[in-house]
Amino acid sequence: MKTLDTTSKAVYLFGAGSADGNKDMKPLLGGKGANLAEMARIGLPVPPGFTITTDLCIRYQQDGREISIQHMHDEVTDGVAYIESIMNTRFGDNDEPCLVSVRSGARASMPGMMDTVLNIGLNDKSVAGLSKKVSNERFAWDSYRRLIQMYGDVVMGIAQYTDDGEDPFDMTLEEMKDELAVATDQDLTVDNLKELVKRYKQTIRDLTGEEFPQDPWQQLWNSIIAVFESWFTPRAVFYRQLNELPDDWGTAVNVQAMVFGNMGSGSASGVAFTRDAATGERVFNGEYLTDAQGEDVVAGIRTPLQVTKEGSLRWAALAGISESERVSHYLSLEESMPEVYKELDEFEKNLEDHYRDMQDLEFTIQEGKLWILQTRDGKRTGAAMVKIGMDLFREGKIDERELLLRMKPNKLNELLHPIFDHDALTKETAIARGLPASPGAATGQVVFTPEEAVLHAEAGKKVILTRTETSADDLKGMDAAIGILTTRGGMTSHAAVVARGMGKCCISGAGEIKIDYKQKEFRVKNLIVREGDWISMNGSTGEVYIGKLRTRQPELSGDFEELMKISDRHARMKVRANADTPEAAQLAVSFGAQGIGLCRTEHMFFQGSRIKAVREMIMAGDEEGRRKALTKLLPMQRLDFEGIFQEMDGKPVTIRLIDPPLHEFMPYESSHQEELAQEMGITAEEVRTKIRQLAETNPMLGHRGCRLGNTYPEITEMQVHAILQAAINVSKQGVKAIPEILVPLTGTVNEIRMQRKIIEAEAEHVHKKFGEKIEFTIGTMIEVPRAVLIADRLAEYSDFFSFGTNDLTQMTYGYSRDDAGKFLPIYLEEGILAHDPFQILDQRGVGELMEMGVQRARKTKPEFKVGICGEHGGEPRSVEFCHLKGLDYVSCSPYRVPIARLAAAQASVRALNE
Amino acid sequence: MKTLDTTSKAVYLFGAGSADGNKDMKPLLGGKGANLAEMARIGLPVPPGFTITTDLCIRYQQDGREISIQHMHDEVTDGVAYIESIMNTRFGDNDEPCLVSVRSGARASMPGMMDTVLNIGLNDKSVAGLSKKVSNERFAWDSYRRLIQMYGDVVMGIAQYTDDGEDPFDMTLEEMKDELAVATDQDLTVDNLKELVKRYKQTIRDLTGEEFPQDPWQQLWNSIIAVFESWFTPRAVFYRQLNELPDDWGTAVNVQAMVFGNMGSGSASGVAFTRDAATGERVFNGEYLTDAQGEDVVAGIRTPLQVTKEGSLRWAALAGISESERVSHYLSLEESMPEVYKELDEFEKNLEDHYRDMQDLEFTIQEGKLWILQTRDGKRTGAAMVKIGMDLFREGKIDERELLLRMKPNKLNELLHPIFDHDALTKETAIARGLPASPGAATGQVVFTPEEAVLHAEAGKKVILTRTETSADDLKGMDAAIGILTTRGGMTSHAAVVARGMGKCCISGAGEIKIDYKQKEFRVKNLIVREGDWISMNGSTGEVYIGKLRTRQPELSGDFEELMKISDRHARMKVRANADTPEAAQLAVSFGAQGIGLCRTEHMFFQGSRIKAVREMIMAGDEEGRRKALTKLLPMQRLDFEGIFQEMDGKPVTIRLIDPPLHEFMPYESSHQEELAQEMGITAEEVRTKIRQLAETNPMLGHRGCRLGNTYPEITEMQVHAILQAAINVSKQGVKAIPEILVPLTGTVNEIRMQRKIIEAEAEHVHKKFGEKIEFTIGTMIEVPRAVLIADRLAEYSDFFSFGTNDLTQMTYGYSRDDAGKFLPIYLEEGILAHDPFQILDQRGVGELMEMGVQRARKTKPEFKVGICGEHGGEPRSVEFCHLKGLDYVSCSPYRVPIARLAAAQASVRALNE
Repeated sequence: MKTLDTTSKAVYLFGAGSADGNKDMKPLLGGKGANLAEMARIGLPVPPGFTITTDLCIRYQQDGREISIQHMHDEVTDGVAYIESIMNTRFGDNDEPCLVSVRSGARASMPGMMDTVLNIGLNDKSVAGLSKKVSNERFAWDSYRRLIQMYGDVVMGIAQYTDDGEDPFDMTLEEMKDELAVATDQDLTVDNLKELVKRYKQTIRDLTGEEFPQDPWQQLWNSIIAVFESWFTPRAVFYRQLNELPDDWGTAVNVQAMVFGNMGSGSASGVAFTRDAATGERVFNGEYLTDAQGEDVVAGIRTPLQVTKEGSLRWAALAGISESERVSHYLSLEESMPEVYKELDEFEKNLEDHYRDMQDLEFTIQEGKLWILQTRDGKRTGAAMVKIGMDLFREGKIDERELLLRMKPNKLNELLHPIFDHDALTKETAIARGLPASPGAATGQVVFTPEEAVLHAEAGKKVILTRTETSADDLKGMDAAIGILTTRGGMTSHAAVVARGMGKCCISGAGEIKIDYKQKEFRVKNLIVREGDWISMNGSTGEVYIGKLRTRQPELSGDFEELMKISDRHARMKVRANADTPEAAQLAVSFGAQGIGLCRTEHMFFQGSRIKAVREMIMAGDEEGRRKALTKLLPMQRLDFEGIFQEMDGKPVTIRLIDPPLHEFMPYESSHQEELAQEMGITAEEVRTKIRQLAETNPMLGHRGCRLGNTYPEITEMQVHAILQAAINVSKQGVKAIPEILVPLTGTVNEIRMQRKIIEAEAEHVHKKFGEKIEFTIGTMIEVPRAVLIADRLAEYSDFFSFGTNDLTQMTYGYSRDDAGKFLPIYLEEGILAHDPFQILDQRGVGELMEMGVQRARKTKPEFKVGICGEHGGEPRSVEFCHLKGLDYVSCSPYRVPIARLAAAQASVRALNE
Repeated sequence: MKTLDTTSKAVYLFGAGSADGNKDMKPLLGGKGANLAEMARIGLPVPPGFTITTDLCIRYQQDGREISIQHMHDEVTDGVAYIESIMNTRFGDNDEPCLVSVRSGARASMPGMMDTVLNIGLNDKSVAGLSKKVSNERFAWDSYRRLIQMYGDVVMGIAQYTDDGEDPFDMTLEEMKDELAVATDQDLTVDNLKELVKRYKQTIRDLTGEEFPQDPWQQLWNSIIAVFESWFTPRAVFYRQLNELPDDWGTAVNVQAMVFGNMGSGSASGVAFTRDAATGERVFNGEYLTDAQGEDVVAGIRTPLQVTKEGSLRWAALAGISESERVSHYLSLEESMPEVYKELDEFEKNLEDHYRDMQDLEFTIQEGKLWILQTRDGKRTGAAMVKIGMDLFREGKIDERELLLRMKPNKLNELLHPIFDHDALTKETAIARGLPASPGAATGQVVFTPEEAVLHAEAGKKVILTRTETSADDLKGMDAAIGILTTRGGMTSHAAVVARGMGKCCISGAGEIKIDYKQKEFRVKNLIVREGDWISMNGSTGEVYIGKLRTRQPELSGDFEELMKISDRHARMKVRANADTPEAAQLAVSFGAQGIGLCRTEHMFFQGSRIKAVREMIMAGDEEGRRKALTKLLPMQRLDFEGIFQEMDGKPVTIRLIDPPLHEFMPYESSHQEELAQEMGITAEEVRTKIRQLAETNPMLGHRGCRLGNTYPEITEMQVHAILQAAINVSKQGVKAIPEILVPLTGTVNEIRMQRKIIEAEAEHVHKKFGEKIEFTIGTMIEVPRAVLIADRLAEYSDFFSFGTNDLTQMTYGYSRDDAGKFLPIYLEEGILAHDPFQILDQRGVGELMEMGVQRARKTKPEFKVGICGEHGGEPRSVEFCHLKGLDYVSCSPYRVPIARLAAAQASVRALNE
């Protein structure tokens, strides 16, 4: 428990161009209070108010209600007087009532956990005064009934008096609407609202035996105490436990004057940006509505008007509105209230200067007086983020380090994948939502089998392969499709991983969609989508649409290239790409990859006639048979490696030896099994018997990785032969190949020792055979927890480590990523897990293992090279963790390379700043 | 590299009642050399000889052949003279040749890795001398041809001159047998052997271009050097790497006089024991053969005779042989060579006194002179082990600590399970061999389905359930059977674990057996075994026999009880049992369990009508439906717990909440699915759909453990309700219930926090409802690696930990125990793994995690209670590890409780001794 200074201030004032606090006082004033103070300080006309400190909240718990009120009584009274003096109203006055809001505000945001009471100061008498003042009786009574409801709920805790936990006010409102046979709240007349207020008060009386207080001070004190109380509710305590937030932070309470933009034609509300949020251009822009509250602008009931004249002209041109019509109906704020606009424009300039970033501000004009309600760094597109950052950098407002830290690496995604036209998106409603597994946009015709996908693609059609989930059997179809949609599986499902590798849009786990393969259709809600129907999918949001949405290919700007160069100057870690084909390697290099960190050789096994040879090898009963089949595979693998080495000329290429269990290569469908049997001249039953023999209960933990290479050394030999022969071949063309052979799934010292022995023997054989020697290294993939524990020993027989954090996460948590869909969503929703550990590296658990692995390996070899090639290698927070733990490189899918480069640079800068 | 004292002795003599070395000089003399010295020291007439030190071996590598010979030349020459002087022979003499053997002997045994050359000293001339001396020309020539073969192989490395690596001597021998059309080596005449010697020498000449050396000294020097060389072969180096033995140990070389028991009627060979190896009684006993070599006694070509008269009389009685016949044909050594016997009897008494343990000795009588070739602690049955130990203890020869350390805990197994009659076993040949999954003996009729098992068992038959592997569906059948035989799966497969829990004999993974369920038969080798055929199985050895073998129930002796009491006095750790039923609990208590360490509640779900309610719960679409089904389960679970609490009165009972994924409870067979559908009034398709939805790719890492309890809290609530209500009910009968609720598969802090919240809330509810409060604790099962890493945090919300090392091993290695059968046997064979980590705890990997878990938890709570409930809890080496790492208790299957008690005591004693 922190010690409280009982002599210190309890209340911090803000408003009228000054404030007691500032933005750095979040621990004492909470996030909201500190920001309000800062805005006031820099001269923004924020509605005046005051913040009761978090210390008081803690003291409240220790001392109780009466003593707490005593402690703050005089300061709160002074605070209210301060509000009155600025607003020219009086708290408790019937004609010119001063209305205030009471809001919680903790150091960190706790969404939905804490309480708010608006319109405090209204009662049976002042409601009439307000009514007169705003010339809107309906508004006044609606405000009053809202006060009663919020006060009843928050302060009087009325829900506890009912059995079922339903809000009695909502019930009363619904009853009344039923009586009147009206559909919405908007249909209630002033008289209806007056009647509702009466009933609300009666509800309070009936349930609590008390009256709704007519005394504004009583309303205020009780609301403040209620907000303090809300910090200690079991709900909030549990939320903090789950999110590891300390209980002794406490919440601050903000009491602030209410302002209204709906006090007639001299009043208005609006939202504005200091730069263009879509393009990043330095153009002040925004929207407003006269005689309206802030939420009206957002709700879109009336068409909002433009803040600037230039914006208004442009808007009218797009909407096809004539200048005369524009002038009579759609005048900009700049034209309709030039004085207020001038003031606003000055503020936006000040704000940019102060925050040195694009601001998103909310304002209200109450009877000609401009109030700024909020300002914050404006949300922007990826393109705008890059442009604004580079502009500010060139303007000299921020330096390279700050530029880098301002970037949100993940937003670069938008610049790299095809995207939907913004307009198209806003008009359509998604029919289903899944996980945004691989970003980008795709529009195509639905197909349900890989065969159909290939068939249609060959006929020049764009298809979206829609499957319950995908497997190795679907690879050809996935390759043919422009998008992949699955109804099961997570962010790291087969579909997701493969699609990201292919740079292909993918949505996984769209559970609402039910596929009927027999009928060749899927159902979602009441829709039936048949094979050949067009759908569109946004892999960046996980949304699926009916029909064709317009997409466009993004262009990479000079700003982007410049930003990447600056990043590379600051990053300590290298960034490599996971790439299995020459095409992917080329793409990776174009995105700035400094090598290949993971080339999965097994994907090569699925193409064309290779899979036949692979299956022949699997069906072979003995080593001789396996060697015969492997001999067929050798030249094909060699060609793959030659292609990759050529693309990566002079850059290292980490090639992982075969990893998946052999059954993954066998055909699952009966017809394919029969086909295979025919090709091999054996019976289908023999094929099926083999498949049954190979079947595993937990393939994830089965006969795979180096367990294959150690039980069938001939497979390792063939792969090593292909790698080194390829390297020799390309070197004759003047290409520099730097192969790094990676042994997967090592868990014991003898496993890597045996693999190393096999690899070195084969290398000697190849070198002798071709009379040329290729330098290469041998590394271990660290995927099973035990590998970490014996990292000191593994390092003796390894030249480098590569953390396979996908599998390491699976085994450290005991989560199968293929099955986690059954509980992970619930765990995330309940807050048991803060993040999906397959998306964001679990630093506490998996991360500690990584750290241990690095430290132990470097105990054996101080300069030992360590990288990461799991999905986390392209996730910014995880990249930063890798930097801090001393990794030499990260490797990720080609499309994430720029993100990783930026994240690596940020990590360096952040570490230096600290 | 160790530093060598180049001035020190190179050769240590032994023989004639004295020796330069002793048993503690293993590092310098190797294991064999040190033991030979010790025997000589205590006055045993061992054939004289000398040991060349391991230091010389290391020096050999550094200095090379000539210098090494120089270093030892004089000492070896003296050594040979020493042998000659005792044996009255001369090395290199043609008439009285002194023959010696040259054997390697490293500090630790390296079976099959090192070399031996026998009969050194024979050549074309001395073979005749020997022939005359032993009056056995055939023996002399056979000895000579063996020398040539061994010398050719070991010293001249003849195999390297052939392409295929086959032994050219073997080929020559086979050729010759073909020519002569004889079947065995025994059929070769003296002339044949002479011809063979000629051909062997020609083979050497042809391949190496050198002659087999006729000079005995050349034979000797080259053999010594060859043994040194054998330490440095790639094969030996790799063996040491795999077994983590240091290269700089080196091997010693033992040169020893050959003695022969086949020099006529005054010669003999025999084997004797100082106590009865089967019963442990203090009766000198043994067998011998006149005019025979040691291997003849063991080979059983002639019927061996008894060493003592008493033994001879007893043997004759059993064999139905008259006294006159006995006297004429089967005279004991005591009667036939009374002087030699007297000497032998004196030696055996000395040996017992010296080693204070039962000795197994080999002797040879060469022309009336007794030689002791070897003595070692005799192998014995479990019963004999206990009796001999307790006898020695009572005789005051060993104290409690030594008594405990003398015991082999695993041998207690034999005392606890029904066993086959020894006689029955020796007569039969096993038809197949699997893993000894659960010890004991069983004889019964083969059935192939659980249904048949139940049917036949109900009809009073004894059946052995024979399955490819078992699943939850087989439980009823396993319960009905008296033995379980599977063709797949390992020591910790479903069949093995369940069988051990049931205390039922089980052999798993008998891969040679091929089951044909359709034909209701299995095939093995050329046999077909049909349903109803009788087989016998020895769960202690993994052997399967055709027909009925006699079994008997062992009786636990007073010695056993006494030993257990002594154990408990010394053990620090408590020993608990894994028990799921009142019957198992009772058994556990009878074996001395001090509590239940793991009660798996899900096994209870399979009995009778419960499985229906379980399936109803699973099929329910919502919480309400699940609660309804759970209400039916509640009273049944409660009854189980009442029964267990009653048995365990006053002892703690750790109850694990439901652990397996729900699909394990669903029926797999189509007919069962239809049955279930009918019972529930739904379609079979609905059942199948649900099963498909529940199916998991890696169930081991899926929706199980506390992931179930946290996503379906109502299951946890029901189980807690049943546990606490049961405790309240039995407490009314004066029974003291001590429930400890165990949350499985925890991997995050929030999981145990949520479970704790649910458990405590339900407890409060139960306490209120029944007006009585039961003390209980809440623990976490540590099974996923991440749990170890966050053990400090988990301890905050836990009252104790229980290591589930089965799953922890699976996840730490990334081995699915159901699938490891595909590579684990190969890994064990290749030496990649020293042990099956599911049988013997992996101390380096899993063990370090355990240590980390204990340390971190005790950082949070210094007195934190930690136990283990995996299979390793009953494995002696693992039990010792648990002791060393500070665990409070181990828990294992009831039958292993005595083993664990003994192992725990040994661990304490060993730790104190150090």
